[in-house]
Amino acid sequence: MATLHAARIISSGNEILQGLYPDTNAQRFSRILLESGFRVISHAVAPDDASELRGILTHALGGCSLVVVNGGLGPTEDDVNREVIAQVTGRSLVFDERSATMMRKRFHARGIEMPERNLKQAYVPEGAIILHNHWGTAAGFLVPGSAEQPAVIALPGPPSECVPMLKRAIEKHFEELFPLRSIRYIHTLHLAMIPESTINERVAHLFNADPDSEVTLLAGRGHIRMRVISSAGDLEAARLRALRIAEEASSLIGADYIFAEGPENASLDETVLKIMQANGSTLSLAESCTGGWIAKRLTDFAGSSATLLAGFVTYSNESKTRELGVPAELIERCGAVSEEVVRAMAEGARRVSGSDYSVAVSGVAGPGGGSTEKPVGTVWFAVSGPEATHSLKLRFPGDRETVRMWSVNQSLDMLRRVLTGAPVTPEIPALIPPKPR
Amino acid sequence: MATLHAARIISSGNEILQGLYPDTNAQRFSRILLESGFRVISHAVAPDDASELRGILTHALGGCSLVVVNGGLGPTEDDVNREVIAQVTGRSLVFDERSATMMRKRFHARGIEMPERNLKQAYVPEGAIILHNHWGTAAGFLVPGSAEQPAVIALPGPPSECVPMLKRAIEKHFEELFPLRSIRYIHTLHLAMIPESTINERVAHLFNADPDSEVTLLAGRGHIRMRVISSAGDLEAARLRALRIAEEASSLIGADYIFAEGPENASLDETVLKIMQANGSTLSLAESCTGGWIAKRLTDFAGSSATLLAGFVTYSNESKTRELGVPAELIERCGAVSEEVVRAMAEGARRVSGSDYSVAVSGVAGPGGGSTEKPVGTVWFAVSGPEATHSLKLRFPGDRETVRMWSVNQSLDMLRRVLTGAPVTPEIPALIPPKPR
Repeated sequence: MATLHAARIISSGNEILQGLYPDTNAQRFSRILLESGFRVISHAVAPDDASELRGILTHALGGCSLVVVNGGLGPTEDDVNREVIAQVTGRSLVFDERSATMMRKRFHARGIEMPERNLKQAYVPEGAIILHNHWGTAAGFLVPGSAEQPAVIALPGPPSECVPMLKRAIEKHFEELFPLRSIRYIHTLHLAMIPESTINERVAHLFNADPDSEVTLLAGRGHIRMRVISSAGDLEAARLRALRIAEEASSLIGADYIFAEGPENASLDETVLKIMQANGSTLSLAESCTGGWIAKRLTDFAGSSATLLAGFVTYSNESKTRELGVPAELIERCGAVSEEVVRAMAEGARRVSGSDYSVAVSGVAGPGGGSTEKPVGTVWFAVSGPEATHSLKLRFPGDRETVRMWSVNQSLDMLRRVLTGAPVTPEIPALIPPKPR
Repeated sequence: MATLHAARIISSGNEILQGLYPDTNAQRFSRILLESGFRVISHAVAPDDASELRGILTHALGGCSLVVVNGGLGPTEDDVNREVIAQVTGRSLVFDERSATMMRKRFHARGIEMPERNLKQAYVPEGAIILHNHWGTAAGFLVPGSAEQPAVIALPGPPSECVPMLKRAIEKHFEELFPLRSIRYIHTLHLAMIPESTINERVAHLFNADPDSEVTLLAGRGHIRMRVISSAGDLEAARLRALRIAEEASSLIGADYIFAEGPENASLDETVLKIMQANGSTLSLAESCTGGWIAKRLTDFAGSSATLLAGFVTYSNESKTRELGVPAELIERCGAVSEEVVRAMAEGARRVSGSDYSVAVSGVAGPGGGSTEKPVGTVWFAVSGPEATHSLKLRFPGDRETVRMWSVNQSLDMLRRVLTGAPVTPEIPALIPPKPR
């Protein structure tokens, strides 16, 4: 079994230290390094200050094989990273002609003469491998490690530059620099509308079953990612190990909860859209408490106009009647949040737009508007299709945004279940089972 | 002038190191500490590992007055923070009876007997101030500093617990522990639909004008926050200093670009909604390329149903005709992305819903669908009101999501301008001025 090299990440940025945004570069690098067979053992954020950075970097050189530093490679006086890294790794800075030429070309292409001070960006520690920047100005570099010292990679701060530069550096140089890396395979199961506790109950034993695999749950509101990371000496062995665990999890939890698997990124909206595009079927939406959010999610994707014929945000009772033809009398008698009205909304949207399928949602998102019979979090869903109209009531915990997000995911998942022939009422009842009326 | 104490933040969490999410606790703490007169000089993320944490914490004790640590206070073996902090600050752990009682009560209230191992959470370093947890189980603590050593605060990881606990600790103990803190006042200007470069041109001199004030820009797509942080010996002096800079910025940039000011958080959706609620006026939406996103943003707020009478997601040409009465011939002749059609959409939405105002958007969000005459990023906007219908074309840079987000903010800002009588075509032309047709 091959080694897992330890790595550390350092980001430079006063804005992060002021709380303007979180350190998302560290997050991106962590994922990339994880997939490349590293164990990330610390993150640090340093200010634009040479002595602070020197302290943090010196400390970071201990106990690891790789330090990735980002930011601080610009042309201003605040940009101290190249000097500090050269100093701490005991190297002098030398001028790199090719970097200077690339920078000059980039400026010329924009019709600007390169300011003299930018030449500072063409200096790198002696003996370092230069990481050319095809996405921006500042070149990065890689100082190879030794028995006493880890390798140090310096990258510019903008994610559109440092992310592809790190990936390319790994592809080009890591095979040689870190020959004993273990290979990791990541397989992700995407689960819809299931409580985290239910997953834990059903597959608890999988979390520690295999010393060479790590199973993590990342819970969202209606979308849980279960990530299996397996290590082995070669990719095929790692892949088989991860797939074995994923298959066992799938059969224990119930395959109908899994709406996508494999890649890290998947979403219910894209899944539903792809099914409908493949079938050539069309959709309309009648949204009350979700207020356009389902439509927004589906139109995030180019080409969704062929599928989504129309969306109605019928937040008021009048618009339910006017736009969807829901009888005012029905709303008066049953209330806007009721099985009768949500079915009439779905059927109305389908009739008005001429779509094959429709989804309707009506609920109490809160914080106001709840009652004993229909407390905050009560939401009715309906999916209408060529064969039938299905309806379902759930009650969600949490604040307005949480209830709305659960509702969007439930709507999309209910549609997915109808489209794929899965049970519309999942075997595991609700997240918070509604009290019987 | 009072001192700015330096502070460091350490978060514990393997999930952050695996790249599952960024360190948002550090972001929250940074803001809170900044407002309380601290300069945050580093962030670090440590794994659930005693020896790593010991190294990071020992290093963090240098060069600052305060270290805030979060996470790792749970009952399991992985939770090593209380032991490591006691060790590094040279104190032994002692049992705190009140913490134990509070924990027992919390378990009893949920009808569960407290597991024995949870008692671990009632131990704190000798001489530490206990920070009781009214929002969860684990108590935190504050080890006061000395001439040789900074103060160390330990807090649990969940944001719903550690954020109020830190705020309370600051209120209760900092006056005494950090008597020389300077007072800071933060005033934020929220600017709509203006390029960052224009702000820089107009107010560049303000960024370094006052040594006791810091001016930062945080740019979003259509919403730029300009944050002024001023320090002084007392709050009123700090406030006046910040307001003076904000006023100068406002008059140089143009007051009509500022849609909110004062607090850190403000949004165009909420601003527009409040104006309409105050006027008692109503709204309808006709969204093409924004696909429901404007409706979603407005319905994020409870009570928006009284204002938003109806939203139409008319992504297809047919639905523009069917739902909004846009003549098919007009779409055929001018194209869906045209001044004629966007005006007809706005007027149709207003007519159909009976609202006082309406907003319509139609554009090419990309990546496909562009042409020489109407390249990707071209978006037409219309606002229709009792007096007139206004229309405007802009062209936005970026990918599909970016174009859509710019478009949502432009729609809301155009409505705000109509509602407040500001010029609908801002003096500063477009972000990317459209080429003349």
